[in-house]
Amino acid sequence: MIAQVEKKYCGAVDVGGTKISSALFTLEGDMLHKNKISIDKSRAEKSVHQIIEIINTLERYAREEEGEIKAVGIAIPGVVFHKTGLIWAPNIPGWDRLPLRDEIQKKVKIPLVLDSDRSAYVLGEQWCGIAKGKRHVVFLAVGTGIGAGIIIDGRLCRGSEDIAGAVGWFALNSQFKKEYAEMGCFEAEASGNSVGRRAIELIKAGESSIMEEMVKGNIENITAKTVVEAALKEDPLAKKVLDSTIEYLAMGIANVVSILNPEIIVLGGGLFQAGRMLLEPVRKEFTKWAQPLALQKVRIELSRLGEDAGLYGVGKLAWEHRTNKS
Amino acid sequence: MIAQVEKKYCGAVDVGGTKISSALFTLEGDMLHKNKISIDKSRAEKSVHQIIEIINTLERYAREEEGEIKAVGIAIPGVVFHKTGLIWAPNIPGWDRLPLRDEIQKKVKIPLVLDSDRSAYVLGEQWCGIAKGKRHVVFLAVGTGIGAGIIIDGRLCRGSEDIAGAVGWFALNSQFKKEYAEMGCFEAEASGNSVGRRAIELIKAGESSIMEEMVKGNIENITAKTVVEAALKEDPLAKKVLDSTIEYLAMGIANVVSILNPEIIVLGGGLFQAGRMLLEPVRKEFTKWAQPLALQKVRIELSRLGEDAGLYGVGKLAWEHRTNKS
Repeated sequence: MIAQVEKKYCGAVDVGGTKISSALFTLEGDMLHKNKISIDKSRAEKSVHQIIEIINTLERYAREEEGEIKAVGIAIPGVVFHKTGLIWAPNIPGWDRLPLRDEIQKKVKIPLVLDSDRSAYVLGEQWCGIAKGKRHVVFLAVGTGIGAGIIIDGRLCRGSEDIAGAVGWFALNSQFKKEYAEMGCFEAEASGNSVGRRAIELIKAGESSIMEEMVKGNIENITAKTVVEAALKEDPLAKKVLDSTIEYLAMGIANVVSILNPEIIVLGGGLFQAGRMLLEPVRKEFTKWAQPLALQKVRIELSRLGEDAGLYGVGKLAWEHRTNKS
Repeated sequence: MIAQVEKKYCGAVDVGGTKISSALFTLEGDMLHKNKISIDKSRAEKSVHQIIEIINTLERYAREEEGEIKAVGIAIPGVVFHKTGLIWAPNIPGWDRLPLRDEIQKKVKIPLVLDSDRSAYVLGEQWCGIAKGKRHVVFLAVGTGIGAGIIIDGRLCRGSEDIAGAVGWFALNSQFKKEYAEMGCFEAEASGNSVGRRAIELIKAGESSIMEEMVKGNIENITAKTVVEAALKEDPLAKKVLDSTIEYLAMGIANVVSILNPEIIVLGGGLFQAGRMLLEPVRKEFTKWAQPLALQKVRIELSRLGEDAGLYGVGKLAWEHRTNKS
């Protein structure tokens, strides 16, 4: 008689600004039971309770597969302060110095491990994505904001206060503008939000563009996606905005490459989902700025896992946590 | 009868662009028998032979102290490619893809360990200097060029090809200038050499300055030291050059802090030796640019070990090498 071997899984919960994704992962990186729900932003207790329910559901799935969950990884759209156990996520009401892990652990027996979304993205791509098997990897997320997840010599780099990777604050233009004070120079010049905002500002200042038609005159509705689409239609204003964005993206990426000498830079986030055609111009412009040997050795690639990078990352984190404990 | 305990030392050899320094170190970081000679640049064999002679001399010193050298660390003004064992140091003739460690090891029985000067600087300050005991440290060397030594979570960061820390290539000004192609934007705008060069250019372009008198009309002799001295005498041109330098130094330091979230940035190299008064303005300007939480948490300090930082660093490296082997 052959003994029944219990299947082992880790759970992954990726909390975004508007949605919570979840899944089970095998040790080999196979994803099962992926799900996504809207986050309840009415009160902190509500969103925390949603996560507890999600973990209970993942446990049920695992039992149905005659398996067990060994650990759950949770990604946060903000900062996990590992010394204090508190988290901060500016886009979720009440998630300010919240002891999230302890709150969930009260109701859940499975060991939990938390990290920032950008750490999760880079771990995910390194585990099962475009950076598989690499030891020096940077994930640059360009969406609402700009941030980087960093793996150096195989280890996540979190910094002394868990806020490493705040590259949205890169100083790339010595002519200081007032918006830099709020979000950092790189983010003000090149995030997805900034692409939309700069197009709106220029149209308001009197420049003409087919984007006005595209949003039926509601120019406040112009987003990075609008700008990308208009540029594909050869709209001069949209092309001007994207040319400047490409320049700043190239400078920011060059700075990462010159200081860290990574094997691969993985580009992700909303801007690159909308504008895959930005990749080639960024690659070209980048060669003007980075350290010559480091730039020859690095690959610049789009994310392979897309919006699942965070799930894979916390799945991997949970498996690492499990391995370290057992 | 008490058994004679043999004293244990490690040797340190710091090869610079013009001098070779050397010393013995105890495990506790006490430095003995410090010495400095001019480097013989006539042929690669000559400079390599000088290092062998220095190590022989250190061995003799150790024997005179009734001790023994367990390992020798050597710092290189360039890159040590750890995968191939080759080194590259642009300012020493023949040190281009030279198997330096193997060449010396043929004649020397003591185990040798090599690293770049910037790795040595940061290790030295962490061992016995201003960054003692810190786990997240960056040493920014601003002299002829600009480079950084980086310790993350207690470990040296060398990058995938041993060229991490090439921050002289930081892109800090979107208006590309032709000199950036040769040495990188940050280095072109803020190195010690660039400070002198920019003053010379402005005087040649017709601006007047007391610096002309200070160098008796030989304006090509203007260096960063001249500019610092003229600024202390309120020379407007010198002050203009230093104001721009301060701005770029602040931006470069801010970028290091935003991406790595270190506990301390140690400033060293010729420019800060000449211009200690640059520290306060750089600290102030820096707060405009870096990520707000990371900038609150970081200290920005001048090197405590000065020109000995490299010696301490390779002394420490040798002791670590010894510990890992035994």
